[in-house]
Amino acid sequence: MISKNINATIITIGDELLIGQTIDTNSAWIAQELNKIGIWVHRRLAVGDVWKDIWQSLEEESRLSDVILITGGLGPTADDITKPLLCQYFDGKLVVNAEALQNVKHIFEVYLKKPLLERNLKQAEVPDTCTVIQNKRGTAPGMWFEKNNRIFMSMPGVPHEMKGMMIHSVLPKLAERFQLPPIVHRTLLTAGIGESFLAERIKEFESTLPSNIKLAYLPNYGMVKLRLTAHGNDPRTAAKLEAEFDMLKQQISDVLVADEDTTMQEVVGTMLKRRKQTLSTAESCTGGYIAHTLTHFPGSSLFYLGGVVTYSNDLKEKFIDVRNTTLAGYGAVSRETVIEMAEGVLRNTGSDYSIATSGIMGPDGGTPEKPAGTVWIAVASRKNAEAHSYYFRFDRQRNIEMTAMYGLNILRKFILDQEL
Amino acid sequence: MISKNINATIITIGDELLIGQTIDTNSAWIAQELNKIGIWVHRRLAVGDVWKDIWQSLEEESRLSDVILITGGLGPTADDITKPLLCQYFDGKLVVNAEALQNVKHIFEVYLKKPLLERNLKQAEVPDTCTVIQNKRGTAPGMWFEKNNRIFMSMPGVPHEMKGMMIHSVLPKLAERFQLPPIVHRTLLTAGIGESFLAERIKEFESTLPSNIKLAYLPNYGMVKLRLTAHGNDPRTAAKLEAEFDMLKQQISDVLVADEDTTMQEVVGTMLKRRKQTLSTAESCTGGYIAHTLTHFPGSSLFYLGGVVTYSNDLKEKFIDVRNTTLAGYGAVSRETVIEMAEGVLRNTGSDYSIATSGIMGPDGGTPEKPAGTVWIAVASRKNAEAHSYYFRFDRQRNIEMTAMYGLNILRKFILDQEL
Repeated sequence: MISKNINATIITIGDELLIGQTIDTNSAWIAQELNKIGIWVHRRLAVGDVWKDIWQSLEEESRLSDVILITGGLGPTADDITKPLLCQYFDGKLVVNAEALQNVKHIFEVYLKKPLLERNLKQAEVPDTCTVIQNKRGTAPGMWFEKNNRIFMSMPGVPHEMKGMMIHSVLPKLAERFQLPPIVHRTLLTAGIGESFLAERIKEFESTLPSNIKLAYLPNYGMVKLRLTAHGNDPRTAAKLEAEFDMLKQQISDVLVADEDTTMQEVVGTMLKRRKQTLSTAESCTGGYIAHTLTHFPGSSLFYLGGVVTYSNDLKEKFIDVRNTTLAGYGAVSRETVIEMAEGVLRNTGSDYSIATSGIMGPDGGTPEKPAGTVWIAVASRKNAEAHSYYFRFDRQRNIEMTAMYGLNILRKFILDQEL
Repeated sequence: MISKNINATIITIGDELLIGQTIDTNSAWIAQELNKIGIWVHRRLAVGDVWKDIWQSLEEESRLSDVILITGGLGPTADDITKPLLCQYFDGKLVVNAEALQNVKHIFEVYLKKPLLERNLKQAEVPDTCTVIQNKRGTAPGMWFEKNNRIFMSMPGVPHEMKGMMIHSVLPKLAERFQLPPIVHRTLLTAGIGESFLAERIKEFESTLPSNIKLAYLPNYGMVKLRLTAHGNDPRTAAKLEAEFDMLKQQISDVLVADEDTTMQEVVGTMLKRRKQTLSTAESCTGGYIAHTLTHFPGSSLFYLGGVVTYSNDLKEKFIDVRNTTLAGYGAVSRETVIEMAEGVLRNTGSDYSIATSGIMGPDGGTPEKPAGTVWIAVASRKNAEAHSYYFRFDRQRNIEMTAMYGLNILRKFILDQEL
């Protein structure tokens, strides 16, 4: 372990976080970036737009943490009270920051092409006790305060604006201040084995891990990530971490999908790009979700040609030539249909591989023989095709996600088998 | 205001939340459900799998809140320390709960079809100082503790399991205990106007709001939600809230999308279902995301026929008859191409309406004339078609989301115009 750990709290401000209208994605990103410069986020706190609650959180967290990062509550409207509160908390008075004012004017002139309002001008005001961190992507400037050897950084809640500020100013400033060794994570992805069975497989390994290396299990969508974590840039620690990671990989090689912190769709995409091969999709029950997960990443056009969302039976016939007799004889949710979907989309797009899904995602639409959660998945190449069925017991959203992830894992193994 | 507010803290446990590997969606759902029974979540806290940090959070939050809901850290692996910690915190000792044991055995026999491991049996152990809340959807039982007039409820972090427990046991128990009037929210959705301009429009309204009704602005994806909140079931408060909400609606009627807390895709879906009309999609740059947002909701097959993801130009020609001369003459990202996409998918699917997208989502692929972020969106009916272009300055993920939401808003207005 390192001599002095620097601990951070992330405080997110906004009633929308508390009543569940907004899901906080900022904190996850901030935590990842802080880890890279050796700062550990040990607490994340969300409070509402309530003076007393925000004030209390500043007092408490400054007792527990060295760095307090604050997002939200900096908008131009009356429910945004963070700035006046910070001004009072840090004994300042509001003054216009010339550069921030210039920035607000620039954004309105060039991008919004609208006249500036008084309330927008006010966004350029900051407490005179802070160091201003300019916001190139929006109108609310960031504010860096220091008090009793603690750093407080207030940023807007808009992810795009916050990220710009962090990357260009806050992270470099923090890295320079603390000069910490990074917190090193090594993560691998497994599929096809449950958390407890995985734990049973590696319990010997786990019990002999040195005390400065920590193992974590992260189950999700029928996959489990295993993560080893060590602090420090001592070469011996780094070497030990690598050695342990290699040992772990060997022990679970049969269920290993990737030896990095990645996703199933990235693994499949990388495989295809490396082989210069292409993929198409024919989605019924997943309704475009597989296509979306593939095209979410830059560069997907290098391997993904496209596909169809054949929500109605009619489109299964029209776009990808599923035979009417197959649909009538076996139903849309059947091995026969999903195989014809995979073969049809492969043929009609000219791709090297294809994946097709058909199922009942729920909550409605199930029958006694095919209850909600029943899914057929097929994959095809020019040489062959195969289909698998599953029965997922979850809610609609999770059934869709599980179908996509199971499907991509089937595809991954199918592509690997084609080499043989 | 009501006589005694009941405040809750949600504590989520797990390093994966702190290092940003997992995004917490549980807390948002829990907060929404608690609001319905009148409990206000005033703090949400995430801590790691660290004994001292969890212990400290229990001590602190029990000073600040009446109800403390805890999720995570109950898995079968060694990094899951929540249960032994709770056992010690509440002065209990671990005993096997017969019903929980029965449940674990049942899940392994019926669903997993695998032999039970010692570590799975241990999941049926609970502190003898808690009331067990059975988990019908997984192997880890929930634990309800009471101490110093505070309620503590520990649940698994798997969303599906936590939700089952909350719906069937925890929410009814809390509702019965406190018998609170609900916290009432009235939310409306606007599109096409920025937060500060909206605030300027309604500043008179805002300044005359009674003190027990609170207004909040929730901007997202170029839309802004406005939310009025009141506590209590006093008929006068409820009537006042309704009156204020009506007044608000009148003042922003030209940018009003819906007078409820909903999404653009649900608004479009509901319109189409009401009209018994159908929709198809032809997506290039959004890569299936529009299809996914539409099919995410149950009942989407009533209005959504399906469509194509034509990531390659070749598929634009094959599936939806975009002319090669159009692609060659104007490029894939052009008014001409996107109009032909919308008309082609409408014709080939036989739908009443269609939507098509083509653009450069970035970070790569831009040119000086068409920089990354350039998007064309078209909508069509059997009578006519129209196209709009935008320039989004965000990252890839956000550009995709913005294109989808702007596109669905164009479609919404297009459908409304067809009545004329």
